[in-house]
This record gives sequence, structure tokens and C-alpha cells, in this order.
Amino acid sequence: MTGYFAGRSLADLGRGLRSGSDTSAGLLARALESVDPSLNAFVTLDPEGAAAAARQADEELASGGDRGPLHGVPVAVKDIIDVAGLPTGMGSAHFAGNVAKEDAGCVTRLRAAGAVIVGKTGTHEFAYGGSGDVSVDGPCRNPRDPERISGGSSSGSAVAVAAGMVPLALGTDTGGSVRIPAAFCGIAGFKPHYGAIPTDGVFPLSPSLDHVGVLAATAADCRTAYRALADLPHREDAPPGGGPAWIVPFETDTDVERTVRALFPDAPSERVDLRGLRRVFVGIQDSEAYDIHAERVAEAPELYQPATLARLERAARTSGWHYVRAVRERERYAREVAALLDRYDLLVLPTVPITAPLIGATDGPMGPLQPSLVSLTCAWNILGLPALSVPAGTVRGLPVGVQLVTRRGAEDLLFAAAGTLPD
Amino acid sequence: MTGYFAGRSLADLGRGLRSGSDTSAGLLARALESVDPSLNAFVTLDPEGAAAAARQADEELASGGDRGPLHGVPVAVKDIIDVAGLPTGMGSAHFAGNVAKEDAGCVTRLRAAGAVIVGKTGTHEFAYGGSGDVSVDGPCRNPRDPERISGGSSSGSAVAVAAGMVPLALGTDTGGSVRIPAAFCGIAGFKPHYGAIPTDGVFPLSPSLDHVGVLAATAADCRTAYRALADLPHREDAPPGGGPAWIVPFETDTDVERTVRALFPDAPSERVDLRGLRRVFVGIQDSEAYDIHAERVAEAPELYQPATLARLERAARTSGWHYVRAVRERERYAREVAALLDRYDLLVLPTVPITAPLIGATDGPMGPLQPSLVSLTCAWNILGLPALSVPAGTVRGLPVGVQLVTRRGAEDLLFAAAGTLPD
Repeated sequence: MTGYFAGRSLADLGRGLRSGSDTSAGLLARALESVDPSLNAFVTLDPEGAAAAARQADEELASGGDRGPLHGVPVAVKDIIDVAGLPTGMGSAHFAGNVAKEDAGCVTRLRAAGAVIVGKTGTHEFAYGGSGDVSVDGPCRNPRDPERISGGSSSGSAVAVAAGMVPLALGTDTGGSVRIPAAFCGIAGFKPHYGAIPTDGVFPLSPSLDHVGVLAATAADCRTAYRALADLPHREDAPPGGGPAWIVPFETDTDVERTVRALFPDAPSERVDLRGLRRVFVGIQDSEAYDIHAERVAEAPELYQPATLARLERAARTSGWHYVRAVRERERYAREVAALLDRYDLLVLPTVPITAPLIGATDGPMGPLQPSLVSLTCAWNILGLPALSVPAGTVRGLPVGVQLVTRRGAEDLLFAAAGTLPD
Repeated sequence: MTGYFAGRSLADLGRGLRSGSDTSAGLLARALESVDPSLNAFVTLDPEGAAAAARQADEELASGGDRGPLHGVPVAVKDIIDVAGLPTGMGSAHFAGNVAKEDAGCVTRLRAAGAVIVGKTGTHEFAYGGSGDVSVDGPCRNPRDPERISGGSSSGSAVAVAAGMVPLALGTDTGGSVRIPAAFCGIAGFKPHYGAIPTDGVFPLSPSLDHVGVLAATAADCRTAYRALADLPHREDAPPGGGPAWIVPFETDTDVERTVRALFPDAPSERVDLRGLRRVFVGIQDSEAYDIHAERVAEAPELYQPATLARLERAARTSGWHYVRAVRERERYAREVAALLDRYDLLVLPTVPITAPLIGATDGPMGPLQPSLVSLTCAWNILGLPALSVPAGTVRGLPVGVQLVTRRGAEDLLFAAAGTLPD
């Protein structure tokens, strides 16, 4: 089953809403009809709240009020982001029955832009993993092959978009959690620079690495959503892209690498110490994550999924001086990559070094699964740089993503470059 | 033996130099004559380099060039601070034979102010301890009782000033390392706000806590030196002091507490969680210190003094999440103390909760010695606030210090308040 929103851009939807050929209430009905429970994308649907929002959106449009390109559009929100009045479950038994009192900052901005929040989408437990199959809500399933993982941690958001249930979803990305499921599900995922979208009301995983991001079918729709969420004025035009460099990946499936590389055959190869950056990432994420969870681990360890508890127990053993050293190395890497970005406008590499493995796998073709999943994405969280994943074709029938990275503030270079790629 | 500079203020010395009754070369000779090797204050003397500097200072003054209140004054520098051409030994066998190539930033400023660097003073090994008796150079001895510790880690600087060998010395202060030996030796010690004096060329102990500070007989002389080191214009007048609050100390000798409290009998009592701040201090200092030392511990542990190695090995076991938590708590404490400093101009408490114990002691009357020594000082490193220790009398014949703390930028309130205390 393919949902209504497959192949429908935000621009298409906006035209329909403004021409009167469609209504927000109608789009909401399409979204709810498109939900395929077998894929386990949504953990909460809010038909009544959404209907009220859609009605308001329709009334505003009818009376000449126009909030821009998200006005009246159904949107899904990852279940670690608070939406007032709805449960925020974090994919964890720890938060059973937890109902959010207030909207997260990013949700406030979504509403201000006129979006209609359809419901909450499944997350890897506490967003602490890139596979999306570790959750009290059960695994999210990849629409391209439901026996395979969607990728995570913004698993349900990727699935909801990829299956056409909604045209747009909010995710969070601490080490790749927007881009990984986007790549595995064959859609676009974008995280802007660190701090561009507020993170209040988002349950923290690793505060110095946490980003809010967006998932949509295309880069262009990610851009539209990003500009609304970052409170930037909507602009139709992006500046032309500059020269790309190919960043040599590591521990990457050769077919994945070849497929992505073919999109930028002329880009010169450059090396960034992605392996060292992953080490820095792990040191920082583990220490910050355990700080968030220490009391829960002490008081109710049994409420975690076993895989999450095992990760946390390992995270607790990271030493303080390794954390301090990681923070120092982060600064050194930031200087190195800034120098590279003085010479190139774009850095290009695969989003994930492999295609989606089967649900429940703990090892992938390149070794232990979790570190493999983030190996090419987490560098850009450590450095806080804008990063976009867009579809790059398929390998053995499964989607592969190409990742584009640029300087802070040069987000539009990514979207311009994505616009030149073959569909 | 009491050295020449005992009881001679910088203002006195400046008048002598400018009236022609004295010369910088003459003061240098007095300094060198005043050095008492039995106290082990200096680890390096530089009679030739100092003579050249003194000659230049005299020539400049004779030709009408005047660099201000430090012009021609003999100064000692702690042996973790680089002085070009002289050994920097860190009190450690690890740096035997290490000769500095360049002046530290604070030494550059000293020289620009016309000071004459007499030599380098002993430090607790790597400045990692508050007692001053753990060093490859042997213990520094307290001029008031040579069987007792001077306090540290700026041990030699405090001894050199307290014994009248020099009128002024540079120290560093990460948890109290200027103020503790100042209090134990009966002189004044001051650390300004974090970052006020550059730390380049100073061997790091815990970079987010390290401060350069000054030791002199009086608060007024600390102020003069501080203004030169912080590159502030010299001013004669300080604004009047505001209302003080008495910060209730913990684990403090009752006679020490009573003696210090008597100086501010009318100050209302307020509570700051000094115990919690010490816990935060230890978590941050240990992680940052081990990051600095990890390779040395791995490669040549036998070169450390046993007490230092034991501290480092314990420091290595601090966990990353404790560090992260400590950094978060530091921010919370900063807000709490800022609120207190909205109501009071000064916070007043003892500098050290005890008097100087015997050399080699590892326990004091309030428990293990090292944590006891920093228990009332380290809070102001965690918070980066200006803190001054000045003599507050004696307990059982040994000096006791009163510590004054204020807002960043309000350093002169400290000096004004110190000026109102009985001599």
C-alpha cells in the first residue's frame, strides 16, 4: 500500500489548498487513511486535535490568512518531542502514561506555520540507537522491505513519509538519527547547523550534539520545512552550488560507495578522520547520555529495553578524562574541517555505509551495527554542520543515501546541489 | 632571618627608586641576599638575567622612562610559568632539564611593567595539591614554623614573599593555590576573575579552572600587581566597599572560624553549598588534569612523586557522566551565587579551614588533608569569581587568612574592604 502523499510535494499540496481543490481537512483525512499499522510508524494518532487544527487552517485560508507553505499540511512528530496534550513515550516503558503539558519549541513553530499535527511517530528507545528496532512500541518497519529496519532513531517519521502517510515529519538527530532512516527508507532528511532549531521540549540524548531535523520526500521540501522551523523567511530561490569534495568513507560496502560516488564523479577525493570523529562522538554522547539517565538506571533498570540498558551501562564506564580529551579533539577537528570548507562548498559521502539490515540484527556487514550506522553521519553532529541526506539510488534493491555537508549558514548550497541530482 | 622586603610596600620601593635613594640593581642585590635556602622557596635564581633587567630599569628611570609601580621591582615567578631561558621544572622529575623558550603571557606583562625577575619558586608537583610539600625539589617550608607546610601549590612564591625575599611573586590558582599558601604564610594572595590574566605559557592543571594570581605582603600590593598583569591602567583610588555577607564554612576549626568571623561581626550569615561546589570541583579538576597527564602516566609513572601518581590514578577513574553532571551543576551554582551577589557586594569566609599542618601530613584535623585545604577556596575557581585572601590574625601562633569574594569586574571592592581591616 502506498499512501496518498507519495509523490506529492509541499508545493503541489499548497497549490491545491489555495486553489480550493483541496482542504486541510481533506488532506488530514487522506493522511489518516494512509496510515498502515503494519509498518508501525505512528505510536499515537490525534484525529480530533488534528481535525480542529485543520478546520482552523481552512478557515484562515478561506478568510485570506496565509501562514506560508506549511499552512494546512499534515505533519508527524517524533515521539521524543513534546506536543501538548499528547503522550510523549520516548519508545520507553519509563514514560508510559507521560502526557506533555506544553509544545516543544519546534512544535510551536510548526503550529505558527499552520501545520496540522497528525500524531507521534515511533523512536528508537530514548533516540539512543540508529536502527529503530529497539522500542517498547516494537520495531518500525522499512516500507521497502518490512522485514528490514527503517533505521533510526527517527524511525517512525521516516517510515511515515516514505510510505506516503504524511508529506513531512519532525525528527531529531544526535549522530545521524534523521539522515540514517531517511537513507534507508529512500527519502530526504536534513539537520541544520547546531542550534538552528530550538530543542526545548525535546527529550535530550546528548545535549551538545542534539539537533532537530526534518524528513520529507525531497530536499526541496526539507528546505521549506527547515526555513519555517528555523524562523527564516520563506524564499523560493537558492544560490547556485559551489565545488564539491568527495570525502573518502571507511568501513563502507563497496557497492554503496560506488553508487554514491557515481553521482559526483569529478569531485576530488579528500580525507577527513571520520574514524577519529566517531571516537570523539562516542566519548561525548555516552557521557552526556548517561548523565541524563543515571537516576533511571539506578532506580528502574528493568524498564529499559535490554539493548538500551546494555548501552547505558557501557556508557557509564566512559572516563571523565576521555570526555575532556574528546572535547579538545572536537575543537581540533573543527579547525581542520573548517579549513577544508574554505576550499570546497560541499563535502559529499554516503549517508550510511550499508543498506538496511534485517530487524533484530546486532551486527552488520561492516561489524557491530550501531557504530556502523553512525560512522559517516556523526562527524557532522560533532562539528555542528548542516547535513542533508537525499536518495542516491539503490543497491541490491534497497535505498542508499548520499550525504551533503556544508558550512554553517550555507544550508542553501546543500539544497541547490541536491536539486541537480537525478531523480 | 627576615628578608629586606618585609614591611616594604611597592609604594615605598617606588618612592625610593624615583627619589634616587635606591636603584633596581640595589633592590636586586637585597633580594638575592635575602634568599634563605633553608626555606626552599626558590628552585632557580637568575642573578645575571635579573641584573641585566635591573640595569635596564635603572637606565630607563634615569632617562625619564617610567613603566609604573612595578618598574625596577624584584619579582619571583612560580616554576610552572615559563620564563624564557630559565628552567620550568613543575616540581617534577618529568621536566628535569626543561628550559623555556618563550615567556608566558603573564611574564611578558611583568616585563612590560618593568619588573625584574629574580628566579623561579617551588611548586607542588604540577600544581596538583594544596600543601606544597610534594615536589622533586623537596618541601617548601613555612617561615612562621619551618617544620610546617607553606601551603601550595604556589608554595615558593608565598614563602619568598612572607620571608621578605621579594615584595611580589606570581602564582597560579586552580582550587586555591595562591590563596592557601598566602593564608598559611600570613601574606595576601589574589586571583582575579577567570581569564583576567592570560594563562598561555603556564603548564595547565585544569584548564577551565586555572587562574594566574599574585602574592604580596598586602592587598594593596596585590592590586597594583594585578592591574599591571591584567593590562588595566594604574589607578590610586578604589571605590568604597559595599555590604558583606558571611558565608558559613564547613569542616572548619572553630578557632579559625571565630578569628575570621570577628573581623565582620555584623555581616549576616548566608549559606552557599560549599560542599557541593567542592564535589563539582573535584569532578572537573580530576578529569581535566588526567587528560593533561594521561600519556605521562602511561609512559613514565615512576617519575611522579608517589602522592601525585596516586592522585592521578584516582583521577583517571572519574567517569565522563560525572564530569558532564559537574559542568551542569557548575552552571546552576553560578546562578545561585550570582543571585547572592545581587544582594551583597562581598562574600566573606576563612581562606583555609585549618592552620598549617606539619610537613608530610596527609591528614589534617578535619580529615584528609588535600580536600580540606581547598574546601573553602575551590568554589571561587568553579565560579571564576575574584577572590582575595588577606591576613586575619593568628590561631595558636599560626597565620589565618580571611577570604573575600566578589562579582567579576568588582575586584576593587575586595581591595577596598581589605583596606578597612586591622593590620
